[in-house]
Amino acid sequence: MKIYFAGSIRGGREDVAIYLEIIKYLSEYGEVLTEHIGEASLTSFGEGETSDEFIHDRDMDWLESSDIIVAEVTNPSLGVGYEIGRAIERGKRILCLYRPQPNKKLSAMIGGSKELKVENYNTIEEAKTIIKKHLK
Amino acid sequence: MKIYFAGSIRGGREDVAIYLEIIKYLSEYGEVLTEHIGEASLTSFGEGETSDEFIHDRDMDWLESSDIIVAEVTNPSLGVGYEIGRAIERGKRILCLYRPQPNKKLSAMIGGSKELKVENYNTIEEAKTIIKKHLK
Repeated sequence: MKIYFAGSIRGGREDVAIYLEIIKYLSEYGEVLTEHIGEASLTSFGEGETSDEFIHDRDMDWLESSDIIVAEVTNPSLGVGYEIGRAIERGKRILCLYRPQPNKKLSAMIGGSKELKVENYNTIEEAKTIIKKHLK
Repeated sequence: MKIYFAGSIRGGREDVAIYLEIIKYLSEYGEVLTEHIGEASLTSFGEGETSDEFIHDRDMDWLESSDIIVAEVTNPSLGVGYEIGRAIERGKRILCLYRPQPNKKLSAMIGGSKELKVENYNTIEEAKTIIKKHLK
């Protein structure tokens, strides 16, 4: 199984440690195409000298070739939203993981989309249980 | 001409005054379907009692019926990214307006997409000049 993990990069890297834990766990179920999203060395400035066109086209190829998209949607991110929108139109399976926040709400376009599975979690253990349920 | 304006709501309302100015100017070229995005009374908590499903389906109907999407992409937003992604797959014309920021970069999925027109601006007057060029 090929898994496309989506998480915020230029939208902010506050959750990178959580992305890494999720990616590690997803690796037990298949090949995670976007492993770099969990790397602490990848900052909100993005992938150094790599051009935006290269990143976009590479990620779209990975998205297209994936069997499932797992998106962490707690941190607002244009790229994650973009990937989810394109993946829906291509009929992909998409699982969104969201940690409820005290003073924020998840985007209505994500929370209100019937084409998505959105699951709330608070701890990594809860996230793992959700992933197990959807990917086993 | 029907215009779908996309701007951040739950991702943060820092730019609401700018959205309002852009929407006012867009109204000279056609009907702006999403005028509420410029309302200061609309906070990051969203549209009060309206359900996410209702918002999502209404906005997707508007997106589908629009002749052009104009998206302000300075503030990271899952919803704006989602709308752009779905609109690309539906072959819509899309203009993105971005104000370069000192310590941030625009998402590579937006900046690197050949299907989008992305234009940088600093002042409202510059935004108007860009809109005029693309919508006249």
